[in-house]
Amino acid sequence: MTLQGVTAAQGFLASATTAGIKPSGKPDMALVVNEGPSFAAAAVFTRNRVVASPVKHSRLAVADGQLKAVVYNSGNANACNGRQGDADAQAMAEATAQGIGAETQDVAVCSTGLIGEVLPMLNVHTGIAALGQALSTTGGHSAAEAIMTTDTVSKETVFNGQGWTLGGMGKGVGMMAPSLATMLVCLTTDAVASPQALSQALHAASDKTFNTLDVDGSTSTNDTVILMSSGASGVEPTQEELDAAVLAVCSDLADQLQADAEGVTKRVKITVRGTSTDAQALNAARTLGRDNLFKCAMFGSDPNWGRVLAAVGMAEADMDPDRISVYFNGQPVCIDSCGAPGAREVDLSGPDIDVIVDLGLGGEGVAFVRTTDLSHAYVDINSAYSS
Amino acid sequence: MTLQGVTAAQGFLASATTAGIKPSGKPDMALVVNEGPSFAAAAVFTRNRVVASPVKHSRLAVADGQLKAVVYNSGNANACNGRQGDADAQAMAEATAQGIGAETQDVAVCSTGLIGEVLPMLNVHTGIAALGQALSTTGGHSAAEAIMTTDTVSKETVFNGQGWTLGGMGKGVGMMAPSLATMLVCLTTDAVASPQALSQALHAASDKTFNTLDVDGSTSTNDTVILMSSGASGVEPTQEELDAAVLAVCSDLADQLQADAEGVTKRVKITVRGTSTDAQALNAARTLGRDNLFKCAMFGSDPNWGRVLAAVGMAEADMDPDRISVYFNGQPVCIDSCGAPGAREVDLSGPDIDVIVDLGLGGEGVAFVRTTDLSHAYVDINSAYSS
Repeated sequence: MTLQGVTAAQGFLASATTAGIKPSGKPDMALVVNEGPSFAAAAVFTRNRVVASPVKHSRLAVADGQLKAVVYNSGNANACNGRQGDADAQAMAEATAQGIGAETQDVAVCSTGLIGEVLPMLNVHTGIAALGQALSTTGGHSAAEAIMTTDTVSKETVFNGQGWTLGGMGKGVGMMAPSLATMLVCLTTDAVASPQALSQALHAASDKTFNTLDVDGSTSTNDTVILMSSGASGVEPTQEELDAAVLAVCSDLADQLQADAEGVTKRVKITVRGTSTDAQALNAARTLGRDNLFKCAMFGSDPNWGRVLAAVGMAEADMDPDRISVYFNGQPVCIDSCGAPGAREVDLSGPDIDVIVDLGLGGEGVAFVRTTDLSHAYVDINSAYSS
Repeated sequence: MTLQGVTAAQGFLASATTAGIKPSGKPDMALVVNEGPSFAAAAVFTRNRVVASPVKHSRLAVADGQLKAVVYNSGNANACNGRQGDADAQAMAEATAQGIGAETQDVAVCSTGLIGEVLPMLNVHTGIAALGQALSTTGGHSAAEAIMTTDTVSKETVFNGQGWTLGGMGKGVGMMAPSLATMLVCLTTDAVASPQALSQALHAASDKTFNTLDVDGSTSTNDTVILMSSGASGVEPTQEELDAAVLAVCSDLADQLQADAEGVTKRVKITVRGTSTDAQALNAARTLGRDNLFKCAMFGSDPNWGRVLAAVGMAEADMDPDRISVYFNGQPVCIDSCGAPGAREVDLSGPDIDVIVDLGLGGEGVAFVRTTDLSHAYVDINSAYSS
C-alpha cells in the first residue's frame, strides 16, 4: 500500500470519516487539502443542464484558478434540492474553510448518491469537524474509500515525474456504473504549474479518457474532475510533460472505473474510422456504444455484425452505406457491407471485445469509445435502487 | 374472424405460404395484390442510412405513386447482402409481377428477419408461385400471420368509412420488439384517392403513431409502411376523412405492436411540455424514452424522478433547469426541480405508466412518445438471437 492517491504528491493532506449519511454505516465523507505554496487548480464538470448544488458552488470556486481544498460526501448527491441544496453545499464549503483557515470560495464541494434527498446537515457538520482533525499526509487511501458508492474497490493512481509527482483518486463513473452514476475524480500534484497549464492538461486528458467512457448515455448531475497543484516540489514540468502525466493518470483511473463498472461482463472498445472527421467518428462510435441491441449481442458473445451496421446507419457521420466494414477482435466479419466468411463463428467469449468499424469513405476521421455489454446484472442493479 | 386486414377493402387479394425460409417451418411469405381500378400508393421507409435491398427496390417502385402488389418474406431481412441482395429483391419483384401480369416496377418488396444472410432463392421462387395460386379475397389474416417473426399475435385492423373501407396488417416494430426489429405495415383501401392524398395522410399518421414508438432508439434497415388504394368503392373521401381514417388504423396497429413488444412488462407514455417547440419537446421525450437508467427504474416500479431530471438535462431542448416538474400517473413527484411530498410512495406497479415532464419555460412545445421498460426478458431475447 505505497500508493497514496491524492496524498502521493507533496503538499497535500487528506482524511476520511463516517458521518452517517450512508445507511450502510460505511465511511462517507472525505477531505483533500492543498497546503501550497501554490494553489493553482482546474476542473471539468458534467455537461448536464440539470446540475447538482455542489457543482454550482464548485464551478464558481474554481473560476479564479485557485483551490485550497475539496470536501466530499457520498450517499447523497445533493441534486434537485432547490435553494436548500444550494445553501447546504455552500455551508459545507464554509464549514470546511473555517476548519482549515481558508476562504469559502477556495473550497470545492463534491457529492454523490441519491438525487432529491436533502442532506442531513447535522451529520455533515459533525463529519467536517472530524475531517479537519484527521488530516494527514497518508490519508489518500482512506479518502478514496470514503467517496465510494457502489464501487467494489477504491481507485487510486500515482505518476512519478522527474522530481515531481501526480496522484489521484476516483469513484463510480458517469455513464458507466449508473446505479449511482456520478464520476468524481481528484488529482493532486506537487509540480509547479499555472491554472492555465493545469486546465489545458486536464481538458485534453478528460476528452481522451473519461469522455470516451460511454456506456448508456446517461450523464450524472454531479460529475466533477478536479486537479490541484501545490507546487511543493519546486519543479516545473513542461506543458508536454504535464499533459502526458495527467493523461497517464486519467487513463489509469478510467481503466479502473471501467473494470469496476456494475453489471458488466464485457468490456468493449469501439473504434470508428474511414469517415470525414474525428467528431463524426466519435458520433458513430457513441451511437454504436449506446445501442441496446448491440450491447445485448455483446452480452451474449454473439458476433451479430448486422446490428453494428443497423446502429451506425443512424449516426450523424459521413459514410458509404455500401462500403462499411466491421472487425471483431481483429477478424473481419463484414466487408463492404456484406458478411465475411466465418463471421458467425468469431469467438467473443472473452471479457474484452475489440470492435473496429470502417465507414468506407477512406477519410481521416477516427475515434474510439469504451463501452460495456447490457447484462442481467445491469437491469438488476438499476431496477432496485432508490425504493 | 370478420376482420380481414388487407383484404377488408374491395379490390384486394392476399395469400400466404410456407416457403421454408424460417427454420421453424411456419408460414414465411405473403402477397397483397391490388386489382384496381386504381393503383395509387404511398409509402414511408426507414430513416436508417444502411437500408436493406428490398427497401432500395420498393423506394423506386413507389416513386411514381403506383403499386399493384407487395410481396413479403419473413425470416430473412435481405439486408447487407450487397449486389446479390439487390438482385434477389429485384428477382422477387420480377417473379411476382410475372405471376400477376404486372410490371416489376409496380411490385414492392418487404423482407424481415436476420441481417446478412443471403436469401434462399429457390425457396423464394417456389413460394412466389404458390402465393400467386392462393390469392383470395379472404387471405388477409393468413398474410398477417405469414409476416410475423417474433410477434406472438398477428396484427390487423379495419376502419369503415361512409361507403369505403381501410384495412391493414403489421408486424414487429422498429425500435420496439428489437430482436427482429423490422416494422412492416401494409394498409389497403377501396377509397378513391390520389397518390398525393395517400402520401399526405400516411406521412401525417406515421409521425403521430409509428414514429412515437421509441423504445431503444434502434432503427431497422427494413422498416416499411405501404398504403395502396384500389378505388373499388367508387367513393372519394375528403382529405380530412382520409387523414382521420389512416390515423385511426395506424394508431390501432401501433397499439397492437406496443402491446406485443418483446420483453416488455411496462408500457410507458412520456409527455413533455413547457418548452419552446414541439420538436424540442420530442427531443426531450425521446431522450428520456431511451435512457436505460429511467427504463430500469420503470421495470422496478421505482418512482425515481431524479433519473428523469438527469436524463432530460441532456436533451436538446430549451428548459429552465430550476423549474422542471415531473408527474407519475398524474401525481406530482417533482415540482420546480425539487422532490414533492410523497414522491417515493407513488404506485407504479401497474402495466401502464404515464409520465409528464414540464420543462418549466411555459412554452407551447408539447410532444409524447411511447416507450417500454428495460427488463430481464429484453436482455434474454436480444442476447440469444443469431447464434
